[in-house]
Formats: sequence, structure tokens, C-alpha cells
Amino acid sequence: MTPENTILIGIDIGGTNVRAGAVSPQGDLLFREDALIEAARGPDYGLPVIIDLVDTVIAQAGQPVLALGIGSTGPLDREHGCIQNPYTLPGWENVDIVSPLRQRFGVPVALENDADAAALGEAWVGAGRGFGSMVMVTIGTGVGFALIKDGVIHRGIGGEHPEGGHILIDPSGPACYCGANGCLESLVAGPAIAAFAREAVKSHPESFLARIPDTPEKLEAKHVFDGARQGDSICIGLVDQTADYIVRGLISILMMILPDAVVLTGGVLRSFDLMEERIRAALEHVNVIIPAGKVHIQLSKTGQQAGLFGAARAAQLLQEKEA
Amino acid sequence: MTPENTILIGIDIGGTNVRAGAVSPQGDLLFREDALIEAARGPDYGLPVIIDLVDTVIAQAGQPVLALGIGSTGPLDREHGCIQNPYTLPGWENVDIVSPLRQRFGVPVALENDADAAALGEAWVGAGRGFGSMVMVTIGTGVGFALIKDGVIHRGIGGEHPEGGHILIDPSGPACYCGANGCLESLVAGPAIAAFAREAVKSHPESFLARIPDTPEKLEAKHVFDGARQGDSICIGLVDQTADYIVRGLISILMMILPDAVVLTGGVLRSFDLMEERIRAALEHVNVIIPAGKVHIQLSKTGQQAGLFGAARAAQLLQEKEA
Repeated sequence: MTPENTILIGIDIGGTNVRAGAVSPQGDLLFREDALIEAARGPDYGLPVIIDLVDTVIAQAGQPVLALGIGSTGPLDREHGCIQNPYTLPGWENVDIVSPLRQRFGVPVALENDADAAALGEAWVGAGRGFGSMVMVTIGTGVGFALIKDGVIHRGIGGEHPEGGHILIDPSGPACYCGANGCLESLVAGPAIAAFAREAVKSHPESFLARIPDTPEKLEAKHVFDGARQGDSICIGLVDQTADYIVRGLISILMMILPDAVVLTGGVLRSFDLMEERIRAALEHVNVIIPAGKVHIQLSKTGQQAGLFGAARAAQLLQEKEA
Repeated sequence: MTPENTILIGIDIGGTNVRAGAVSPQGDLLFREDALIEAARGPDYGLPVIIDLVDTVIAQAGQPVLALGIGSTGPLDREHGCIQNPYTLPGWENVDIVSPLRQRFGVPVALENDADAAALGEAWVGAGRGFGSMVMVTIGTGVGFALIKDGVIHRGIGGEHPEGGHILIDPSGPACYCGANGCLESLVAGPAIAAFAREAVKSHPESFLARIPDTPEKLEAKHVFDGARQGDSICIGLVDQTADYIVRGLISILMMILPDAVVLTGGVLRSFDLMEERIRAALEHVNVIIPAGKVHIQLSKTGQQAGLFGAARAAQLLQEKEA
């Protein structure tokens, strides 16, 4: 059991920012601080930034630290506590992040993939609270996926993180770095929507998208959602296409896992209001052989703090295990 | 713990046959007996058939019975121990199967969906033995799916059985009774292969398929596999298409769950040898972001006995829980 008047430190490492927070054992965020990680400068620069940030947060909280948890953009080598991410953290290859923090702060340090951490946070204090099983789907620059069951992260073979964002949706879809074509990420992530928009604007000079500065090169998913809000038919078509692909992804998740809850988050889903009606209507059609209608599908409650809460929760679980 | 010199009774109820077996607590099949359930005659006929069959098996084994387990074609209402299956067991609607057996034999009686029972059996004594997590995919008249984790059946919301056989594969695929189009079952189950064959033979009078008596009406998946073995190019094309869709299904399973093992079974997969090379080669391409190559993908070892073993294992788990 976690003593009162102590704190857990959650650390959320992204490609641009690192965020640290002091969280009570009950899941209240006491203090939070962000810093630029300047990933390109590598871990020799980044690690001291993280340590300074944690120092600041601990000083602000003024209570003893039980454990630290890190949620990091992956790939990770959890077994060795290493970040293995040349993709969004250039230079961070085979970087042991756990040992230096454990040494410096003298407490257990947990390391989780960011999608898993976010899901753990949402299950702990967010929209997944109180549900036995929860899938979290993050649609932003990529598509993240995590399954929490009875408060525990589902892990794949060898403890590896599954990549449910790459379930296959459409054989005629674009090629993805995952090795397949038409996976969910290749169809609904921000860059995918932007790519469809760049293609669409070519044959639709009348579209809202044609009036964006430096179009089509600078088109982003947000322009598509902006255009849809202004009633542009090309943008509405692209938003509907995105919703339809999300539906097919959700159906596969419901068919395979049938969780109690699905929590949605990420930059693309900030425009969920534009897609919600279409998505919920389509999901009603698959209520035939599974009780899909009983599954709670809703937006994240902790938003961008999900990873921080989840990192703190991972810290707590590790501390309880080691105690 | 299960005492020695006792038996578990596994019962496997299908649309045509019912099978019962006496299984040792260590998972050895001691005796087995089949009977026709003549589903159309309803439970008033079928229930006594099942009870007689169990009596016979118990008499043959001559050892005390610890518990009974039933694996049945669903839908089921596990909570109330009822079969709810007007589809393949006409007349078996809201039929309490658990109470009469518990009353008659005076031991705990477990009830599981047949796909879950088969997977439990395969995890206990078959190809899934020794793996922490296992997905079983049965491709036959339909596509069954079950996930076993740490020896326990994964259940969906409200304890319901997920239907992973209906994950979505191709938006341009046929409509399925599940409410969607292009689900795995609609593309690779026996009837789906037969439907593609009936379509193909129309424009290919030179095909092997055109020489089947009462073609195209009587075409079955087995004719497609027979033709492929004889080198018929239309049949080979249909087998390759089936393999490609199976690949996309397997990739989605690996991406979402990343289990230690995938066990394949069912009538269509009796021709796995015709598809194996193509399937394994295609799966190598998705080894980029998940260690798909580490996942053991293999055929069932217990074959048509999987459900019987699994029913016995479900009985054992229930008995241990109630003891």
C-alpha cells in the first residue's frame, strides 16, 4: 500500500517536450512542469534536462518520492530500461534512461511505452476509470493503441508493445512503414489525412484547401477539419472518409477484444465532433453478433496529461510490487 | 487441486454431433463417444441423448467424476447456463443445459462457447501448451476466434464472447450477417470460398471447377483445394486469394494482440499446406515494428478433439474454483 503524504513522479517524454508531474497516490496532480528536450541534441543534453525537471517538481511538491515512472515515445527495450528510438528521438539509441534516474533519486523507476502509459493513466483517473477492460486509441501523428485489463497493461510476446494502430483496414490503401499497406495509421493519422488532402486539391481548385498558403505542400489535417467546419464539400468528404476508416478500425477492435470501454484521444480526434454522429451510426450496424452497443466509446478525460498520470501509475505499481 | 483417479467429462455440442469424453486431470483422453444430436428435433430429444452419452462414457471410465464441461456452438448465455442458438441448433433457444446435467450428475458443470473451449483445449494439451498467450483461429463453415492468456479465456464486455472472426479485412468485400462487409469470415470461410468459386466458374468454363457435377450450385471450398492440387490455375488463384486474406487477418491479430502463439484449425485449414509458404512469406514483411517473426504460428495438435479437451479443462477450472 502507498503511504499518505508521499508522491509519485510521472515523466512523459515526447519528441519535442518532456513533462514531469508530482501525482498523489490517489491520482491527484499536484504540480507539473514542462521543458524542451531538444531531442536532436541527444541524451547527453536531454538526460540532465529530465533530471533538472524532476528536481524542480520534487522541490515544488515538498513530499517524499515513492517512485518514478517514465512514459516515452518508443521503441523501448523495457527489459533493460532503454530508449531505442532513432525515429522521433534522434540520437536516443540504446539509451539507458532507468539506471541514471534510479541512481539519482534512489527510488524504483518504471519505463513504459507512451501509448501504454497514456492508457494506464486514462484507466486510472480518466475515462477508463471503473472499467474492467479498456482500449485506448490515439490518433495523431501516428495511431497509438493500448489495452488495459484489470488495471494491467496487455503486453505482447517477450513483453513487447503491440501496435494495434497498424491493424489492416483496406488492401487498396497506401503503403506504410509497418510493412503493410492500408493499415489504420496509413489512413487516419494526421499525415495520412494531409496526403489525401494534397491529392484531392489537385483536381479541386475550387476547394477551401486550394486557398491555404503554400498549398498543397503545406496542407495539414487541421486544414481539412477547418474546411469541413466552413462547409467545404471536399473537406467534408475527407472527414467522412476518415470517420469511415475509424469505424472499420473500431469494429475490428470490438470484434477481437470487445472491451468494456474504448477511449479516444489525439490531435485528429480533437475534431471528433465532426465525425461522432457518423461513427456512432455506423457502429450500430455491427450490434448483431456482439453487444457492441454496450461498449462505452468516449473521448479521453485526461487529454494531454494521460501519459503523465500513467507514468505515475506505472511507478506506483512498480513500487507496490517491489515493496 | 484435482485428485488422482478421477475424471473430467468434456462434452462438445455441434450442429450435427455431440461428443463426450472422459479426460484425466492431467489431460489424457481415456474414452470418447459420439452421438447424433439431431438438432432439428430440439432439446427434448437432444438433452436425453447428451445424458445417455455421458452415462456411457462414465461407465466406460469407471472412475469418479469431478466435473462436467460443455463446449457448445453459440450464442450462449453463460450466466444462466443457457444455449441461445436458433441458427445452428434450431429449437435450442433459451435452453438451460447446465442445470439438468448438474442435477443428474451432482458435480459442477461449466459452459463455454465452442471457439473458447477449443482454444482452452489447445492451450492445455495441444499446440498452445506452454505459451503465455495464444490466439486460436478456426476457419471452417465460419471463422472462430479465441484468446487465451495465462490459461484463462479472454472475455468481452459482460462476459460475452468476442467474435474475432469478423474483424474487417476489405471494404470491397461481401456483406456478412455480422452487419459489416468484408470481414474475415466473409472472405475465407468455406462458404465464402465456394461463393468466389461459383463466381469464377461463370467466366472460366475451362476450369476444373466447371467439371464438378451440378456446378456451380454444388461447388464447395474443397473443390477449390482439389483443383489447386491438380494445378488448375483458377483454383490456384482462389487459394492464393484466400491465403492473402488470411495473411491480412493474421497481421491484424499480431498487431493488436501480439500473442506468443497462433494456433490454426478448421476445415479450410486442412489445406494449409497449399497456403503455408505464401502466408509465412507475407508475414515476414510485417516484422518491422513488431517482432511478428517470433510468434509461433502453427496448426492445431488436438484437431477435432480440441473442444472436448477444452470442455474438460473448463470443468477442471470450475471444480478447482468451487473446491
